[in-house]
Amino acid sequence: MTGSFDVTRYSRAAGEICRAGQFLYQRGWSPATSSNYSSRVSDRHVAITVSGRRKGQLTGADIMVVDLDGSPVQSDCRPSAETLLHTVIYRDRPDIGAVLHTHSVKATVLSRLVAEGEAVVLEDYELQKAFAGVDTHEGRVTVPVFANTQDMTSLAADTSRWLADNPGQPGYLIRGHGLYTWGRDMPECLRHVEAFEFLFECELETMRVRG
Amino acid sequence: MTGSFDVTRYSRAAGEICRAGQFLYQRGWSPATSSNYSSRVSDRHVAITVSGRRKGQLTGADIMVVDLDGSPVQSDCRPSAETLLHTVIYRDRPDIGAVLHTHSVKATVLSRLVAEGEAVVLEDYELQKAFAGVDTHEGRVTVPVFANTQDMTSLAADTSRWLADNPGQPGYLIRGHGLYTWGRDMPECLRHVEAFEFLFECELETMRVRG
Amino acid sequence: MTGSFDVTRYSRAAGEICRAGQFLYQRGWSPATSSNYSSRVSDRHVAITVSGRRKGQLTGADIMVVDLDGSPVQSDCRPSAETLLHTVIYRDRPDIGAVLHTHSVKATVLSRLVAEGEAVVLEDYELQKAFAGVDTHEGRVTVPVFANTQDMTSLAADTSRWLADNPGQPGYLIRGHGLYTWGRDMPECLRHVEAFEFLFECELETMRVRG
Amino acid sequence: MTGSFDVTRYSRAAGEICRAGQFLYQRGWSPATSSNYSSRVSDRHVAITVSGRRKGQLTGADIMVVDLDGSPVQSDCRPSAETLLHTVIYRDRPDIGAVLHTHSVKATVLSRLVAEGEAVVLEDYELQKAFAGVDTHEGRVTVPVFANTQDMTSLAADTSRWLADNPGQPGYLIRGHGLYTWGRDMPECLRHVEAFEFLFECELETMRVRG
Repeated sequence: MTGSFDVTRYSRAAGEICRAGQFLYQRGWSPATSSNYSSRVSDRHVAITVSGRRKGQLTGADIMVVDLDGSPVQSDCRPSAETLLHTVIYRDRPDIGAVLHTHSVKATVLSRLVAEGEAVVLEDYELQKAFAGVDTHEGRVTVPVFANTQDMTSLAADTSRWLADNPGQPGYLIRGHGLYTWGRDMPECLRHVEAFEFLFECELETMRVRG
Repeated sequence: MTGSFDVTRYSRAAGEICRAGQFLYQRGWSPATSSNYSSRVSDRHVAITVSGRRKGQLTGADIMVVDLDGSPVQSDCRPSAETLLHTVIYRDRPDIGAVLHTHSVKATVLSRLVAEGEAVVLEDYELQKAFAGVDTHEGRVTVPVFANTQDMTSLAADTSRWLADNPGQPGYLIRGHGLYTWGRDMPECLRHVEAFEFLFECELETMRVRG
Repeated sequence: MTGSFDVTRYSRAAGEICRAGQFLYQRGWSPATSSNYSSRVSDRHVAITVSGRRKGQLTGADIMVVDLDGSPVQSDCRPSAETLLHTVIYRDRPDIGAVLHTHSVKATVLSRLVAEGEAVVLEDYELQKAFAGVDTHEGRVTVPVFANTQDMTSLAADTSRWLADNPGQPGYLIRGHGLYTWGRDMPECLRHVEAFEFLFECELETMRVRG
Repeated sequence: MTGSFDVTRYSRAAGEICRAGQFLYQRGWSPATSSNYSSRVSDRHVAITVSGRRKGQLTGADIMVVDLDGSPVQSDCRPSAETLLHTVIYRDRPDIGAVLHTHSVKATVLSRLVAEGEAVVLEDYELQKAFAGVDTHEGRVTVPVFANTQDMTSLAADTSRWLADNPGQPGYLIRGHGLYTWGRDMPECLRHVEAFEFLFECELETMRVRG
C-alpha cells in the first residue's frame, strides 16, 4: 500500500540525518536524547530518527523509514513519539525535503516567556534573509507557540492547520519544548535552524537588558 | 571482610569514569580539580576518582576502589573527600550503577539563589523526560538544596534520609557547591547531568529576564 | 580598463579569506550564510566572497575578484550584495588591505539597543590597545550605527563620508545587521574583529547587570 | 651581573608558557594579542612572553628571558609592557614559580562594576578550595581592584605593597583590564585562573539575576 522506495536515496537521507545530529548536538541544540530529525525519501516515505537515541552519535542503526501516516516501513524499530509532527509537513508540503526538531535552551526559555496566544515576532534583523524566500530585513517572521502536549494526533492537526494558513513561515515553537523548522533540502533546513537560534538568542539578550 | 571483586569490571568502570571526565570537563561542568565520579564494580565495591585530580585528563592512575563505607580497597591512594556521599547511594540503592558530582557555574549560582529550605522545582519542560522513569512534561522534578559543609558524615546521613523519602527523584544540589545525580549505569547518569544542566540554565535564563 | 592583477597575490588573498571564514564561523560570528570578507589584490582589485556561501566552509570556489566599483573581473559569479561597502574602503583608504563584515549576536543586539543617532562609545578598556595605532586605554573608540537598508549605493556613500571624517576609527555597525572593520592586512583585521566582539560583549554584559 | 641560567629549565618554562597560551586563548581568556605569561627559570631569571604576540599560537620565538628588574637577558626582543608586574612577584615571593595575566570578558566587566576602593569578595563557594592553601568554603578570598594605568613602575610598587600585606591572597584585578594570579608552578597557576574565571562568572551571573 505504501509502495517501495529507492534504497540509495534512503542511504543518502540517513547520512544527512547523522551529520545533522553531530552538528546540532555540538552546538548544544539537541541535549541528552532529545530532538528528532527527518529527510524525505520519496513522495510517500520519510527517513526519521528512532526514538530515544543520542543525537550527537547517530549511525545508520538509529534511522528508520515511516510512511506519511507515521507507520514504520520495513522496520521493527519504534519511531520518535513526535513522528506525526514530521509527517504532516511532508504530506501537506510536497516541496519540503527535510524537517528538524531541536531543543535549545534559548528556544525553550523564549517559548515559555511568550504570553499564551502570542507569537515570537522577528523583525528588522538582517539575518531574516537566511530564511528561504526572504530577501530583505523589512519583512516580519511570525513564530507561533503551540501549547505542549503528549497527544501528538491533536498537535499534528493544529500544526497542519497553521501550515495551511501560513505557507510562507519557516517554523514554529512548542512551549517548554523546542523548535520545528523545515526546508527544501537538509542544507536549507540546517540554515533555518541556525537563523532561528541566532534570532532567539538576540531576542532573549534584548529582553535581558530591557528587563 | 569486604571480599574481592572482578578486575575486568573494575577496568571497565575506570574507563567509563575517565571518558565521563573528558566530556564533563570539556562542557565546563568540572573546572580545575573539582568534581568526583564513581561507578559500581560489585555489590560491595565502587570505583571512584582519587582526591584532587584534574577531571579532563583522568587515566587509570586517577581511579581507585572503595567499599561501601568509603574505605580504600587494594589501594594506598586517598579517595575524594566526598566519597561517603557516593557510597550511601550505592548502599541504599542497589539499582544504581553510577554517580556523578559536577560543579557548573549554573548549578552553583542557582543553588545560592534559592532561599534556605526551598528546592529548585522543574516543571512543564519537555526535557524532564530525559530523567529515568519520566514520560511526560506534566510531572515535577524537585531538587533539594542541602547546606554546604565539610562534615561529610553528617551530610551523607542527610542525603541518605532524603533518598529514602524521595526514591523517584534523580538528583540534589549542595549550596554554592554543585550537583549530585545517579543512574542505572554511566550513560543514564550522564544523560541526567546533561538534562539537569540544560534545565538549570533555562531556570537562570528565565530569572535573568524576569528579574 | 581595470587592468590585470597578479594571480599569486589573488591566490594568497583567497586563502586568507577561507581561513578567516573558518575562524569567524567557529566563533559564532558568521552564522548561516551571513557575512562577507575581502582582501586587497592590487590598487584596483579586491578578492571577495561570492554571494550566499556558508562562511565556515569556504574554498577557492567561493571567492572572486571585483574592481573598486564592485564589478566582477574575470568571473561569472555574483559578488555579495554588500560589495560596495567593501570597495569604498579600498578606494578611499590605500593603506587598507582587508575588510571583514561579521554578524554576531552581540553586535546585532547592541546595534539595536543604541538610540537612533547615537554611537557605541568604548572607553577605559585596556583592550582598546588591540586597535591599530592605539597605545593607551585612555582614548575613546566611537562606533557609529548606520540605519540598515537594502540600498547599498546610498549606504556606501554614507560610510565613505564617515570614513573621510573619522580616519582613525576602526569600524562601524549597521543596525540589526552587523560589524564592518578593516586593517592593514588580514591578521590586523582579524585582531580588530576579536577586539570589537570582546568589547561589545563587555558592554552588553554591563547593561545586563546595570539594567 | 644577573649571572647565568640553566637552558634546559628555560626550555621547559618556555614550553609551559606556550601550552598555557593555547589553553587560555581557547577558553576566550586571552583575546587578540592581549595577556602575558611568565615562568621562573632561576632565582634571578624569568621566561616571559614577548610584547604583542597572539597568545593562542605561541612558539619558542615568542618567549624571552628577563631579570628581576624586567631587563632583557640574552635577547633583543622587547618584553611585555607589563613585565614589571610579573617580576615584582618573583622578587618578593621566592616560592612563586609562575604568573599568568589574562583578559577575560568576565574579569573586565566585574572589575569595572566594583565601586572604587572596593574589592571583589568571594565567599561560600566550594570552588575556593581550588586556591592553594584553602581547604574549606568557609574562608573568604578578597580580590583588590587596582586602577588601570600605563605607568607600570607605580603600579608595580602598589601591587608589591599589597602582596606584602596579603601573602595568602591568590590574585588581583586591574580595572577594565584583567586578572593577575600566580602559583608555585604552572599547573597550580592555571588552576587558579580556572577557579577565578569560574567564580567571576558566578558573581556576574548572580548580579544579573539580582540586578
